[in-house]
Amino acid sequence: MYDLIIVGGGPAGLAAGIYAVRSGLETLILERSEISGQIALADIVENYPGFPSISGIELMEKYKSHAQEVGVKTKITEVLSLSTEGNKKIVSTDSGDLESKAVIIATGANPKHLNVPGEEELISKGVSYCAICDGPFFRNKTVAVIGGGNSAVTDALFLSKIARKVYLIHRRDQLKAAKVLQDRAFASSNIEFILNAFVVEIVGSRGEIRRVERLVYKDLSSEEDHKLAIDGVFIYVGIHPNTEIVNVEKDEEGFIKTNSLLETSQKGIYAVGDCRDTPIWQLVAAVRDGALAATAAKEYIESFKEQMK
Amino acid sequence: MYDLIIVGGGPAGLAAGIYAVRSGLETLILERSEISGQIALADIVENYPGFPSISGIELMEKYKSHAQEVGVKTKITEVLSLSTEGNKKIVSTDSGDLESKAVIIATGANPKHLNVPGEEELISKGVSYCAICDGPFFRNKTVAVIGGGNSAVTDALFLSKIARKVYLIHRRDQLKAAKVLQDRAFASSNIEFILNAFVVEIVGSRGEIRRVERLVYKDLSSEEDHKLAIDGVFIYVGIHPNTEIVNVEKDEEGFIKTNSLLETSQKGIYAVGDCRDTPIWQLVAAVRDGALAATAAKEYIESFKEQMK
Repeated sequence: MYDLIIVGGGPAGLAAGIYAVRSGLETLILERSEISGQIALADIVENYPGFPSISGIELMEKYKSHAQEVGVKTKITEVLSLSTEGNKKIVSTDSGDLESKAVIIATGANPKHLNVPGEEELISKGVSYCAICDGPFFRNKTVAVIGGGNSAVTDALFLSKIARKVYLIHRRDQLKAAKVLQDRAFASSNIEFILNAFVVEIVGSRGEIRRVERLVYKDLSSEEDHKLAIDGVFIYVGIHPNTEIVNVEKDEEGFIKTNSLLETSQKGIYAVGDCRDTPIWQLVAAVRDGALAATAAKEYIESFKEQMK
Repeated sequence: MYDLIIVGGGPAGLAAGIYAVRSGLETLILERSEISGQIALADIVENYPGFPSISGIELMEKYKSHAQEVGVKTKITEVLSLSTEGNKKIVSTDSGDLESKAVIIATGANPKHLNVPGEEELISKGVSYCAICDGPFFRNKTVAVIGGGNSAVTDALFLSKIARKVYLIHRRDQLKAAKVLQDRAFASSNIEFILNAFVVEIVGSRGEIRRVERLVYKDLSSEEDHKLAIDGVFIYVGIHPNTEIVNVEKDEEGFIKTNSLLETSQKGIYAVGDCRDTPIWQLVAAVRDGALAATAAKEYIESFKEQMK
């Protein structure tokens, strides 16, 4: 039996692993794939103090090698569900059941879809949620970015250096992104802003090989629909937490509710990073959450060590 | 008038500065001295994800240069008090008053004293709160470390490589430090543990140049006093928050009470890092706090921008 199983190997999970192993807990991190964490998709990270400018993938590599140096063990497997038997937690995976005294959920979150006609059918055919992954396919083409937050504007900037033209479409009349990002975007000659508008349909070409050809957006001031010829559309309209595997209290969007020590509604089960009711979806918050939950889990395990055989 | 004044230039204050400037806030950090933050006194930091092993001072330099690259402005001055005039905050310093729309308190904390006879008089004469600063003066000498937490054990290990002999004196029968640290300390041949005991007096030599000569501790099992010949004593019995300058709600130890967005009992005044009611006194927590409070302060300032001239 492990002391602690951490589900998810992104920044929050790795930070939890580093703290847990250093505090003497027999710890295992379960990850779905070699590269975890939404941050691995980030072109440039400029707000993790200590690294003025680093790519997301490079930072993840640093976290991973730090965890490895400390002696954190990881296993690539898909977690199916989590249950409790007295003080024992049972983590069911596609390669069998694992047992532990405590569990930290660090499953992160994934981009939300627009849920408009054409979107699902055209994923990977011009519809994308990751400019870093798919941007290079749109060299000298025309793309639209949907959303007004940091992710949308960061990736619009990234795309503006590849594509011929970038439209940024946002529902509100103002962007939500950090001022520095907005300033850079406004200064970019090939980003055009379409504010007060939302996408109603993504339309593909006809014939054998379907690809995105245009989108239709509604202008909220005139209530009129407009067509926009584009080759690709990048969608940044929020994130959906990966919390289906665990049966604890969640908010209406599915983010796991936690107390000040990041414990969930079930004793000995903690949630960290983007999958919980975090006040900010930021790397520093994920990393701190991991450290705090591992520290709390250590105390929890010590507290009933004698009771367990 | 500044948008935001940050009082304190340790990790929490610098992280707040990085986030604030990136979000477009006119920001000023006030620091008391060139080198801020307790972390600067740490020999080795091994739990800030991304840096498997780095000295505290080196990490602080990285934070500072990151903040400078982003464009964070700092001013060396002593803050005397903080008051509110409507929506305006007034920060009184020894070089005059400064005004801002919001304030983040990042004043940190300082080591607690034992408050035993001999302690105050012998500070810098053998009594120290920082092995990194003063340890090198005790080469091949005998020292005592007081406390049982991470700081005590970390610094006992540091001292064990300099001093001939290190006594670690702790009130409880078990150490509180991380297991890895305990294991290393137990494996060290020149660290001797005196548990269940507390210091009652520190005694200096007689004559012109007084220096620590011995300490007296009480053994809690036998209730007897024992003398111990030592050249130095390093004290790690907790920290005291530097929160006297601000009149907001605090807990009984003086740590500032904060809500989930790190706002204090006064609107527009936030507290971050070691000076607040944090669940863990850790670098990652300080840095995350800075990021969160800067984000919250930005929202707060936007919300009443129109109301202010």
